[in-house]
Amino acid sequence: MATMNRQVVLKSRPVGEPKPSDFEIKEVPAGEPNEGEYLAKVVWLSLDPYMRGRMSERKGYAANQELGHPIVGGTVSQVVKSRNANFKEGDYITDFAGWQSYSVSNGMGARKLDPKQAPLSTALSVLGMPGMTAWYGLMQIGKPKPGETVVVSAASGAVGSVVGQLAKLHGCRAVGIAGGKDKCDYVVKELGFDACVDYRNAPDLFKAVREACPKGIDVYFENVGGKVADAVLPQLNDFARVPLCGMISQYNATDLPPGPNWALLLIKRILVQGFIISDHFDRTGDFIKAVAPAIGGGKLKYREDIVKGIENAPKAFIGLLKGENFGKMLVQVADDPTRK
Amino acid sequence: MATMNRQVVLKSRPVGEPKPSDFEIKEVPAGEPNEGEYLAKVVWLSLDPYMRGRMSERKGYAANQELGHPIVGGTVSQVVKSRNANFKEGDYITDFAGWQSYSVSNGMGARKLDPKQAPLSTALSVLGMPGMTAWYGLMQIGKPKPGETVVVSAASGAVGSVVGQLAKLHGCRAVGIAGGKDKCDYVVKELGFDACVDYRNAPDLFKAVREACPKGIDVYFENVGGKVADAVLPQLNDFARVPLCGMISQYNATDLPPGPNWALLLIKRILVQGFIISDHFDRTGDFIKAVAPAIGGGKLKYREDIVKGIENAPKAFIGLLKGENFGKMLVQVADDPTRK
Repeated sequence: MATMNRQVVLKSRPVGEPKPSDFEIKEVPAGEPNEGEYLAKVVWLSLDPYMRGRMSERKGYAANQELGHPIVGGTVSQVVKSRNANFKEGDYITDFAGWQSYSVSNGMGARKLDPKQAPLSTALSVLGMPGMTAWYGLMQIGKPKPGETVVVSAASGAVGSVVGQLAKLHGCRAVGIAGGKDKCDYVVKELGFDACVDYRNAPDLFKAVREACPKGIDVYFENVGGKVADAVLPQLNDFARVPLCGMISQYNATDLPPGPNWALLLIKRILVQGFIISDHFDRTGDFIKAVAPAIGGGKLKYREDIVKGIENAPKAFIGLLKGENFGKMLVQVADDPTRK
Repeated sequence: MATMNRQVVLKSRPVGEPKPSDFEIKEVPAGEPNEGEYLAKVVWLSLDPYMRGRMSERKGYAANQELGHPIVGGTVSQVVKSRNANFKEGDYITDFAGWQSYSVSNGMGARKLDPKQAPLSTALSVLGMPGMTAWYGLMQIGKPKPGETVVVSAASGAVGSVVGQLAKLHGCRAVGIAGGKDKCDYVVKELGFDACVDYRNAPDLFKAVREACPKGIDVYFENVGGKVADAVLPQLNDFARVPLCGMISQYNATDLPPGPNWALLLIKRILVQGFIISDHFDRTGDFIKAVAPAIGGGKLKYREDIVKGIENAPKAFIGLLKGENFGKMLVQVADDPTRK
């Protein structure tokens, strides 16, 4: 009997918040690799906010997701059959198999993993795209100087948690913004940020940010936009830098609200730089060299929020957009025999 | 009889557009230089949009203008009496005497001029702050590559005219935006821009910009904000750069309108950098080295809009904020014997 591949495909383009009915589960044969290809079993699937943008028809920074096809996404997989000399049966790799349990690929963009170096799933979190996003945005765009104040929104998330910890390692004051007491406690007590503002429960968000940042803000790593940005931006110092990484508060918006008046940016000589990590994959070596030792040394902590079964990806993704996850959102698609 | 100094002082802080009654003419004795100081006669006074910001109580990027004192501004002066070893009687200098006909100064920020190198008044235009603003914003922030499209608003102005000409010298397509047919004709026919959009008379500003920029926009040198920015920003290309130099359309505004949603900046990975040239005076040498030869060689043209008499500065300044000037707005405060 042929190996069956379970896929989650996009059935209809979400309007506002995605609904379960926008997704569909399909079973198709897993397929056979041609010369130069491999067949791999997906072990871990990464769920990330950027996927929402691809589901819209609105022009986004990546190609739109095609209807009826498995949703695109980063994965950790194990090669089960190979006709590609670079990948052997049994190899663990990180690739872009998407929301499905098997994939056939020619290996483009795939990278072999050493399960002894770090847990496989970290290739999708601290040692993967979210970690590299944090490192690139903070260090290459934000360029914080020791003693400066770095604020990051979505601070308990896969990117934000690394931003704040790298800022601390760099000698900065790290202030997170997150939703709810649990996340804020985690950010301060476990990750070691200097402070964390609870944007859901602060009676006066502007004031809460001011109290956490008595010397103003030198770097604002922007993940969310919306009312959090409204409270933070007026508190930027002269010559502040804003690595603009995400606007998660607006991904479900059908109308985009206006932004701040640019007089603020002019008067304070502020830098705003939108960036997308896939433009900077040539820096992967620099990133691994800079960040991997801190993970090995236990100086960089991370947290995973794991949902089991590819069929549960839609529900987990809908929750992710509402901030219901706590740590890097991962779908465990198959057993990970290397995991203790 | 003591030499009398005619001053224009700020009488009241303008609300919205400045009115003649916000200013007052005063006559006071010119004063005597103490040890280390000089007394200089103002020959040329520069009028610049940034002065409007200083007249408000709103926090701006420079100290507020004090009521009852001469308004601050860049000048070309001739030393008439000196007790400062660096400046001799008869020397021409560029300094910050402000809106008055004489000043006593210790020479801080003053620089000696050679009237044989270039007309004295250029120290306030192409070879002064506006020229350096254009050079720094375009070359150090915009970093245009040959073949790219550079758009500049207020294109016939002191800064904009240099931006477009430097862009052309750098191998770019230069597109100006200006108000009225005369200014647009000047920008294209005299300054050599590839195109100029008349924002006052274009029936559809967005479309007019699109026609002038068939390959989109790589650098937008922002001087005005408002409806011009609304038409330009959606047409920025991926990885575009926006040197944010001024927002003249808003300087008289009592309420600041909102800006564009930042999703645009994220999706297209756009850089926005607010800057103020006085932060970068350490680059004056680089600027002169880069730009002075083009002026001597006639490759960089400039135009001056001259009003005579310090008492006419308020009226000229009010017109400047409405875009009524044509070329660098200067007040000729005294005869310039070096001028042909």
